[in-house]
Parts: sequence; structure tokens; C-alpha cells
Amino acid sequence: MFSIGIDYGTNSVRALVVGTDDGFEYGTHVYNYPSGDQGVLLDPADPLLARQSPADYLEGLEASIRGALAEAAKHEKFDTSKVIGIGVDTTGSSPLPVDAENRALAMDPRFTDNLNAYCWLWKDHTSWREAQKITALGKAERPEYLAMVGDTYSSEWWWSKIWHCLNVDRDVFDAAYSWVELADWIPSVLAGVKASSEIKRGVCAAGHKGLYNPKWGGLPDKEFLGQLDPAIADLRDRLYDTAQDISVPAGTLSPEWAEKLGLPEGIAIATGAFDNHLGSIGCGIEAGMLVKVIGTSTCDCAIVDLSKSDTIPGVCGIVEGSILPGFYGIEAGQSAVGDIFKWWVERVCGGGPAMHDQLSAEASTMKPGQSGLIALDWNNGNRTILVDQRLTGLILGQTLYTTRAEIYRALVEATAFGARAIVERMTDYSVPIDKVVCAGGIAEKNPMLMQVYADVMNRTMLVTRSAQTCALGAAIAAASVAGAHESIEVTTKAMTGLKDIRYDPIPENVAVYEQLYGLYLTLHDGFGGITRDSDLSRVMKDLIDIRDAARA
Amino acid sequence: MFSIGIDYGTNSVRALVVGTDDGFEYGTHVYNYPSGDQGVLLDPADPLLARQSPADYLEGLEASIRGALAEAAKHEKFDTSKVIGIGVDTTGSSPLPVDAENRALAMDPRFTDNLNAYCWLWKDHTSWREAQKITALGKAERPEYLAMVGDTYSSEWWWSKIWHCLNVDRDVFDAAYSWVELADWIPSVLAGVKASSEIKRGVCAAGHKGLYNPKWGGLPDKEFLGQLDPAIADLRDRLYDTAQDISVPAGTLSPEWAEKLGLPEGIAIATGAFDNHLGSIGCGIEAGMLVKVIGTSTCDCAIVDLSKSDTIPGVCGIVEGSILPGFYGIEAGQSAVGDIFKWWVERVCGGGPAMHDQLSAEASTMKPGQSGLIALDWNNGNRTILVDQRLTGLILGQTLYTTRAEIYRALVEATAFGARAIVERMTDYSVPIDKVVCAGGIAEKNPMLMQVYADVMNRTMLVTRSAQTCALGAAIAAASVAGAHESIEVTTKAMTGLKDIRYDPIPENVAVYEQLYGLYLTLHDGFGGITRDSDLSRVMKDLIDIRDAARA
Repeated sequence: MFSIGIDYGTNSVRALVVGTDDGFEYGTHVYNYPSGDQGVLLDPADPLLARQSPADYLEGLEASIRGALAEAAKHEKFDTSKVIGIGVDTTGSSPLPVDAENRALAMDPRFTDNLNAYCWLWKDHTSWREAQKITALGKAERPEYLAMVGDTYSSEWWWSKIWHCLNVDRDVFDAAYSWVELADWIPSVLAGVKASSEIKRGVCAAGHKGLYNPKWGGLPDKEFLGQLDPAIADLRDRLYDTAQDISVPAGTLSPEWAEKLGLPEGIAIATGAFDNHLGSIGCGIEAGMLVKVIGTSTCDCAIVDLSKSDTIPGVCGIVEGSILPGFYGIEAGQSAVGDIFKWWVERVCGGGPAMHDQLSAEASTMKPGQSGLIALDWNNGNRTILVDQRLTGLILGQTLYTTRAEIYRALVEATAFGARAIVERMTDYSVPIDKVVCAGGIAEKNPMLMQVYADVMNRTMLVTRSAQTCALGAAIAAASVAGAHESIEVTTKAMTGLKDIRYDPIPENVAVYEQLYGLYLTLHDGFGGITRDSDLSRVMKDLIDIRDAARA
Repeated sequence: MFSIGIDYGTNSVRALVVGTDDGFEYGTHVYNYPSGDQGVLLDPADPLLARQSPADYLEGLEASIRGALAEAAKHEKFDTSKVIGIGVDTTGSSPLPVDAENRALAMDPRFTDNLNAYCWLWKDHTSWREAQKITALGKAERPEYLAMVGDTYSSEWWWSKIWHCLNVDRDVFDAAYSWVELADWIPSVLAGVKASSEIKRGVCAAGHKGLYNPKWGGLPDKEFLGQLDPAIADLRDRLYDTAQDISVPAGTLSPEWAEKLGLPEGIAIATGAFDNHLGSIGCGIEAGMLVKVIGTSTCDCAIVDLSKSDTIPGVCGIVEGSILPGFYGIEAGQSAVGDIFKWWVERVCGGGPAMHDQLSAEASTMKPGQSGLIALDWNNGNRTILVDQRLTGLILGQTLYTTRAEIYRALVEATAFGARAIVERMTDYSVPIDKVVCAGGIAEKNPMLMQVYADVMNRTMLVTRSAQTCALGAAIAAASVAGAHESIEVTTKAMTGLKDIRYDPIPENVAVYEQLYGLYLTLHDGFGGITRDSDLSRVMKDLIDIRDAARA
């Protein structure tokens, strides 16, 4: 048997055809969104805006699956008629407005020129004012809502974006019958849902971004939403009352899409979820394991049994069933990781991909502490554990001899310190982390970074086998809901694995990074506002002492 | 009449032939030191070491004067027989060991391979441990010594260097009959001094670097020096008891050197002084004027009448007569200015001179605050007002969109904030600053920087006429001591002037920089150790607010 995973990323969509018995990858195909700047629609007047075209999504859905099936067909063993399910993961929170018939408003000729009718991509930050107001209101009146999402509501999330749309474009808001996360919209399209009231909503998006929780009866109550705007309270009636985890299907493949894709009608469509949540299933997530997807940004996922506390301050989300049914799914992450290195190499040093390799190679010859530098990993704000978009980068310790490779390494180290801060917050709140499994392009391609992470976190770093863990996780969800194995756990074990490589901490490096991490925390807590009386007098001198010791 | 100024810089020596009636520059010639890396002898094993070859100095003395005279000879009006004096300025503190006959030890065949016998260039920091000990001992036992030099004794200065030589190379120390500042050695050579006991010592080097003050009988007492090492106390007997200002000559031109140079025997040799002290005379210094020489580093000089306080905390030196006889000479400065821009362009961005122009041009189109960045100007430590070599650089506020040109401008602004901190310390201690006159390559070539300085300091920035103010100041000292005019003040007025250009503060820029300077001080005082309870929680957010306002 086979299943298909579809992974909607920021610049492209990928389909992956997988064997359900062993996770073997029979075929894959990537479709680059044709619109905008690498698939992202921008507004030259507002750097905070980032939208995407629903038409691109639908074209990409067909093209990527057709392409992956064509590749799979080259294997003698593969048989289209044995495809038993399709799963979908997407970026998020990426909501789009739809009409009552579940059509994307952006595809209505009235709105094709209006970016507010498009999909509001996860990294759209135009609604930061709304996010601040929701946070303030939540703290004052519904602290229990915020406790589940790290105590701060983000401009990247569902309600901020929808409210901002209402505030800046009443026409679009009024024309929208409902709003839907991309992760729920694609399954609904595949399932042929023609009434937006019938869309199945996944608990991953609902719980992590929509303040959904069965504890308080689903979405936030209308009285609360009415304080944002009465129109938001009204909208609640056209959204949803319950959300489901991936143990339940979103529907079955409609005749229309079965024909478009050349697949059997009626096969299972899994409930959609966010890329890194299904990605962590593609990494074989289990209790005690942290899954780190290291890419332009980082997502850190873990699961913990339902007997544990369901709140961790500063951790963006703890949602029952958002990853694996029967466990809390915990999502944390860093707003920028690879993007910081890219910024340094491309924007500042004026280099390209070759310079990444060159600076990594140079940096790999340096000892911890040797540069005398320390940096903060906040060029795109801090998602966890400060949950503050209005933080920025810092580089400290430079002399007249500091090189670009030293700064490159310091930036890598900064992201490692940020990663450690997240793990420590989890373990401080009784989420055991015994094993770290990494995925993503950087984990596969940059051994220097992986060793730095192992040394900073004092934990062995493992690397997952598949290069497409998100699509694989979506395919696993599909295989599971189609009944390929007796449970999701068994399906996951069967279809995932690790690479042969491992990065073990080196004790002398660990000792130096222990000191540097102390300095990182001084800066983190000071600039992050955790403390208001920082003693900075030793920071530069300690760095020099550590540097001199490293060079001796 | 004509006089000659010789300016010993870090990489070359320049001679300038000037008319004593109007300061007209008849001829100039630069001699690049042939030894080492651009004239600086380095030790690959120790980045703190920087020495120079006395042989280079002597060859350069002859070559530069001969060259300048040859150029002057092209002017009909010029007449070698009417040269009435020679003045000398040098870097400092740059002491060298000499034998009893005033020969540089480095020129003794026994020591040609030993860098400890060479001139210890100002930027040699090998003796930082000795400097710390002198500071500690001074604070405990002779606070009055340190009060004159900013409360901290530097590794760049006379006693640290000599003591370090004793600690690391007893052979050289024992072979040295005496030690002499380069600023005093060159005049003694020109005057044919053949006994090192007869070298005339200038009060500029003695007072600013040697802890010399007539208040306590000249150099530090032997009891104090004996606590460094008994051999240092012994050395005091072979140094000097009195030092003189530039109202008194260092001697007259010896027959030997008159012949070498083709100049009249017996003309006046001015007392030597440091480059920026004579440079501020070349800028026309007077009470109420700050002279800023903006180059790789910056020197800020002012004079104040003897009725004013003779100590200013954190200001490296206040010495009677060190600039103009009859006034306290005040010397402050920044350890790196142009060097920071050079670091950024060359080391980090991988560019050359054209990139400086390009980034300056880009930066000149930006509004204050627009980048959201702030930086500290400490890549080479802080000379004034923290007097701490063990401080390092900082860049803060970067996003994923920050450009190299924005950082370039932030670094320029950082040096301007550092410059403002110095001026404010002076005015806080009753040194009036009514006028700022700038010199140096950067002041002439970078209008973007000059406007930033005017806006940050909220003062008009003027630019001195001569491109060679140090050599000009040395020539003025020579003209004065040779009696060209009735006083040094009249000589200075006659021989100096301003360029036609001026940079006036722009009120809206001043207002923004007022806010940014507040943030600079938060970082300055925190990392500089002035305070131990810094509230950093607003720094990044204030920068974003200022940025958003600038961009609106």
C-alpha cells in the first residue's frame, strides 16, 4: 500500500508518494508557486505584509501530486490503485477568507486585485497592533486563553489577522462568509466540501493559533470576541464549534479531484495540520524526544502525556492532540535561524551559497570562545520563550580583527543558545527530553552547526532519515487514518528512521559553552525584559578572558 | 622666512616646508618606513606587539626633509638659507631604549634581531598587565598621579612599556642606559646630543604619559617606582628631572645634520611633542576651541587657563604647557574611528576604498534613526572617558533586512556618540567648548560623517585649512621658538586658517539623535561598568519606535 503527503511550504508545495509498510519514498515532485516574490505576494509600501495566492495552491496541488505519481510509476512495485490516503500539512497560521461555498475569496473576480482577500501567510506581521490588543485584553479578562499559547498572542496568528482585515478592509471582511486555515482548506477541497460550514477543522491550527480548547467550549466566547469588535463575535457563528485530531479523517477524495489526480475515488483524506507538527511525526516523534526542524526558522516539537501540566510560560502552544492523538503536542521555535545566516552572508557580506560553505568551513576550525564574540538570535524577534516580535539582533565583542567567519560562527552559536533556552524551559516544566532528532536542510548539510548545537545543549544530536519529514508525516497521517497499521504509533515506527550520523557533545567544548551561555542569558534576560537591573560590567571582560583561555 | 615641521606617523614620516608669515606650504614629502608591515614590526605569536625601527626614523628624517626642500625649491620665493627652525611631532607614548651616547639600542648589532630593543610604538599593548598593576598601585598609594591622566594608567604608556621590557627581557633593559620618547629623541638627534643625559625632554610626553608633574618634583618618586621594581627606581636617576614646553628650544641644528639636510647650521630645533598636540596648534587652537583630529583613531585637544581645575575624571591627560605654554593642555580621544569603518569595509564586507565611498553615499541618504540600529565604538577599547582597553564593539537592532550601509552609518554614529561623550565630560568640568575645528583625512573627505557629528553633538563642525596640521604645528613651534613673531599665539594666528566649508546641526536630526544618545549612554554606562543595574528592557523597542517614526 501507498499514501501521499502534501507539504505546503512558504515558496513551493511538495508531494511525496510513500510505501506504508516501510516509508520508502517512491516519488516526489515540487511545484514552485508562480506568483509574487518566490510565491510570496509583497507590498512595497509595507515590509510587514506577506500574502499568497489560493490559485497557486490549487494548481500546485494537482501538479505536485501528478508529478510525484509519475515518478513513483517508474518503480515496478508501485501501483496507483493501491494508494489508500492523502495527508496535508501547511504553514500556519495562514488563514484565508472563503465564501459560503468554500471558494477562496481571492479567486472571486471582484477581489483578484486585493491582497487582503488572499491567504495571509504565517509571516505576515501587519496585525501586530491587533496582537498587542488581544494580548492585553486576554491578560485582563481571559488569562486561561493565553496560558495555552505562551502568554502572548502573536501577530502571526488567526485572530490578529482576521481582526486586522476587518480594521483595514471592511469589504473583504464582509464578503467573507468564513475564514479557514490553509491546513484545513486543502483537505476540504480534496474532499469536495462545497459549504464552508462543513469544513473539518484540525485541532493543531485551532488549538495553537485560534485559542480553541474544549475546556472553554471551543473557540473564545462571543463576549470576549465582541470586545475586539461585534463583527468578530458574529463571525464566530460561521466558524466552528469542534476541532479534531488526526485520528479522524477530514473526508474522502471527491470524484472531481480523483479524476484530476488519477487516484481512486473515496480514499481517506487525513485531517490537516501544520508542517512541523506532521514533520515531527515524520521524524518518529515519541514521548521524551525533541524534534527540531532546522531551516530558515526552527520549530521544536515534543509530546507529553496528559497527566503533565498543560501550560509552560513562554512556550507558544500546548494543545491536546495537536501532534499525536492522546498526548499534548508542544510547539516552540525560533523566529529565524537559517534566515540569520542568510542575512549575514547575502545582505552583509554580499556572498552566495558558496560563501555559506566557506564560512562554515572556516568556522569549523575555531574553538568555542576563541572569537570573543557573543550574539543574540533575535533578528526576526523571539518566538519562544520571550514571545516578542519587537526584539532585534545583537553582536557583541568585536575588535578590529574580527572576521566575517567569526561572526558567522557567533550567529550559529546564538541560535544554539536560543535552542538551549527552549529545551531548558521544557525540562523545567517536567517535559522530559532524552533524545534530540533533527530534520531540515541545515541539519543535513552543516556538521559545524550540528556540533555546536550538541556542545551548547550538551545532548547528542541525531538526524532523521527522510529529507522530507513534513510530507512524510502527512503521508503517515494518511496511512494511519486509512488503517494501514493498528495504530498511529505503529504506523510511525514502520515508516520512519534515523540517519547513520550522530553528533555527540565534546566535554571541553561543553565547559566553554556553559560559560558563554551564562553571558547569553545576561543579555537575553536584560534586553528581553525579564530583569530590569542587569549587571553588564563583566560581559566584555569575561568574553576576553574566555577568548584568551581558548587561544592559549 | 620658512620653517620645517616633521611629523612621525604610524606608517610614514612627513616633512613640510612652510612660510612663517602666512603658513603657505611650499613643499612636502612623505617617506614610508620600509620595515615590517607598513612600518610596524609585528610578532605573529602576539597580536598585542607593535614596534618600529629607529633606523627607519633616521633614514626617513633625511629623506623627507630633502624631498620637501626639493619641492619647495621649485617656488621662486623659497630660499633654503631663510629656513629658521625645525619642529618635530611624533606618535606617543613611543619610547625607545638608548645607550649612554644616545644611540638607539636597536641599532647596536647585538640587538638588531630583538624587537624589545626597538621603539615600542604607541599601539603596542603587550604591557597591559603592568598597566593594571600601576593603576592599582597608583590608586592605593599615589592617587594624585592618576588624577592627572584620567585615573587609569594605560598599556600604551611609558612606564608600562619600560617595566614590561624589564619583565620579559632583562638583557635589553640592562643594556639601556636610558629611555626616551621618540618625540624627544628626534630633536636630540638633530641637535647632535651625544649623551643621553643631555636630551631635552618635552612636557607633553612627560606629563601625559610619564606621570611627570612639577607639583611632585617631576617624575614619580623612587619609593613608588621601587615598588614596581628596584631597577625601575634606579632607572629614574638616568631619566630626567625637568621637562620643558615649546617656548624653549630643544637645541640647535648640529653641523652633522645641517650637512645631511642642506640646511643652515645652528637654526632652532623646537622641543618635540605628540602629533595631535602640535596638530592642534596647526589647527589654530585657542581657549574655547576643541580640535578634533579624525583619522584611524581620534584625538580631541583643548586648552584651558590655569585657573581651572586640573583634573577631569576619565580624561587621559591634563598637563600644564603640553599644548600651548601658559595653559593646561587637555588630551582626550577615541581608540578607533576610521579603523572601525576600515574593519567593517575590509574585514567584514571584503571591500576596498571604493566601498567606503559607496557605503558613505548610501548612508548619506538615510535619516537618523531610520535603520533601527545602535552601536558602540569600542572595537579597540575606550580611551576616554572609560579608559578601558578591555572593552569591545557592539552592534544592536539588526533585523533580517539590515544592510551593510546601515551598519556603516551606525558605526559612524557610534563614533559620534563617543565624541559627544568626551565633549560633555569636558564641559561638565568647566572647559568651555564654543567651537569645534576638525582635521584629518576623514574630516576632509566624508561630509556624511561630518554632518552626523554636527547633528549628534549639536555643534557646528569647522574644518581646518591645512591637510597637514601636525607637521604644520611642528613648523609653527619651530617658527615661534626661532622668533618669527612676537608670541606663539601670534605665530599660530598668522600661519593657520579654516576651510570655507562648515557643517551646521539640522534641528530635526538633533532631536532624533538626542533620543539615540540616551540609548547609547544606557549601553555605554552598562557595558562600561559605570552602573551595575541597567534597565535594557526598552532599548530594542525604543529603537523600533524611533525607526518607525523616522520611516513614517
